[in-house]
Amino acid sequence: MLASIAHRVPPRGYGPWEQVASTLTEGLVARGHDVTLFASADSSTAARLHAEAPAGYEEDPSVDAKVAEALHIAAVFERADRFDVISNQFDFLPLVFSRLTATPVVTTIHGFSSDRIVPVYRAYDDVVHYVAISDADRHPDLEYAATIHHGIDPDAFTLGTGDGGYLLFLGRIHPDKGTATAIEVARRAGLPLVIAGVVHDAEYHRHEVLPHVDGNRVRYVGPVGPGERDRLLGGARALLHLIDFDEPFGLSVVESLMTGTPVVAFARGSMTELVRPGVSGFLVADLPAAVAAVAGAARIDRTACRLDAVARFSAERMVDDYERLFLRIAAER
Amino acid sequence: MLASIAHRVPPRGYGPWEQVASTLTEGLVARGHDVTLFASADSSTAARLHAEAPAGYEEDPSVDAKVAEALHIAAVFERADRFDVISNQFDFLPLVFSRLTATPVVTTIHGFSSDRIVPVYRAYDDVVHYVAISDADRHPDLEYAATIHHGIDPDAFTLGTGDGGYLLFLGRIHPDKGTATAIEVARRAGLPLVIAGVVHDAEYHRHEVLPHVDGNRVRYVGPVGPGERDRLLGGARALLHLIDFDEPFGLSVVESLMTGTPVVAFARGSMTELVRPGVSGFLVADLPAAVAAVAGAARIDRTACRLDAVARFSAERMVDDYERLFLRIAAER
Repeated sequence: MLASIAHRVPPRGYGPWEQVASTLTEGLVARGHDVTLFASADSSTAARLHAEAPAGYEEDPSVDAKVAEALHIAAVFERADRFDVISNQFDFLPLVFSRLTATPVVTTIHGFSSDRIVPVYRAYDDVVHYVAISDADRHPDLEYAATIHHGIDPDAFTLGTGDGGYLLFLGRIHPDKGTATAIEVARRAGLPLVIAGVVHDAEYHRHEVLPHVDGNRVRYVGPVGPGERDRLLGGARALLHLIDFDEPFGLSVVESLMTGTPVVAFARGSMTELVRPGVSGFLVADLPAAVAAVAGAARIDRTACRLDAVARFSAERMVDDYERLFLRIAAER
Repeated sequence: MLASIAHRVPPRGYGPWEQVASTLTEGLVARGHDVTLFASADSSTAARLHAEAPAGYEEDPSVDAKVAEALHIAAVFERADRFDVISNQFDFLPLVFSRLTATPVVTTIHGFSSDRIVPVYRAYDDVVHYVAISDADRHPDLEYAATIHHGIDPDAFTLGTGDGGYLLFLGRIHPDKGTATAIEVARRAGLPLVIAGVVHDAEYHRHEVLPHVDGNRVRYVGPVGPGERDRLLGGARALLHLIDFDEPFGLSVVESLMTGTPVVAFARGSMTELVRPGVSGFLVADLPAAVAAVAGAARIDRTACRLDAVARFSAERMVDDYERLFLRIAAER
């Protein structure tokens, strides 16, 4: 398991790639597989841990990202003959090692950060097995072995009452995530908004978000840990996920569904695969529709919403899917 | 021959790593060796050219540096079994492929851009053969196969008269290179200064260089091509190379020596290996000594200066050294 080393595994706070690597690793170990996790040295796992970097390069300024990544990835491929399958949860860089080993490489594409990285995926399409994290994120030029939606641990989320009297924004503060749009929809819906997440675009935060934060109608609570996140999600009438990009997956969306809190999302990217309209939220195209959907959220059966999430987005389901794929690919070798 | 792809090979303007790769490649081909040059597609060589990137990433904004580098380096190692030796004139990234091939990798370390990249060199010290570009640049933690000073084509430089009545600064406009120090030394020496080179630090250029540029006592002529460079060097009384860092090598220094123009340099980094005090210039420790050395430069025998440069820094000598090393390493395999 080749994890990202931006953060440790599992991440202390933000770190969706590291979270998925952790969930998958621990799930496979629990099923008796012999897994080596390549991650930063401060990671925590029941697998064998191999570390080159002392800590995530986003967390330790003494770590040079480019140096650490190179040593980290090479460590996997220098030991590749010990493994039946390499699960690459990193970005594109490991691809260019894949022709130098007979061990199959299964690469989960956690979204394309830029069109300019597509050529690498295209160049290794014939040798690497690609996993899309949503059908929406499949690139037309590439061949995929599977689409596997992320899964999360249902036990980390409690069915909430949704009676906190507020709407919730949960995610990075960034125009892509539509923080300002959520503020406007909450205003029109006449409901307070709680905003939780790390600031990824300081300019946007300063100019489009902070001027609206009054501690009452709009509250910003910063990044939240698992307990606070569960409480905030469970108390919300709805999660506003009014994204301004084709998001390849939305972990906060499935986290919300796990607490029974419906999601009002723009119908972009993977949202049509995550939210079932009328069952676990609403897919909308514009602000008026989002405001109307907030009103409709009260009629969502929160228990059914959670059950749907457990069925479709549990860690078990994700581990099932990857295990099946890894076994198939190892057998083909 | 694995060249850098920041610029094409040979570079149109700035590009010392690409220049060395070009000189070495053409020299080896001229001696009958079968060389494949891995470089950008717009490169020019008598060797077989393998290109992944259409152009240098510093020259073509459509090229993503990280993507292009990964594809470029992998292309070499995926074909490694066709080669007796891989000459790595790139940075550290190719090192992490070196355990995945039986073909020996000889890495020329063109200076350490940061202390934070030393760990990669240390990690591959037992498998990669390192070449230092000066003894001064040898890192105490590493084992080296050789020190090989860069060489340049003597025919590209003419023995000049040095009677242009000016001092010359030739290099990147950057505090490391001491552009402002050269201005001050020229002022104290009572001589005009011509400054030629690309701006690598715009703030420094704006605040420390431009205010002194008056088109008369201090002239800035921008980057210069080979012809203009030869003319400027040949007419200068001395080249001022008053660096503020331990420069691993100075191509402009040996270019100056080739035209017979003595070099006044701070005695740092590789300067003690390039400049022979009294023969081809002076090594100084401070500004007053630099001013005195400018006066002394008139007494340098320009013909002897050039002859010393031809003997020690010709392309032939560099190709000799690399050829001998490559043959030895290929034989040891």
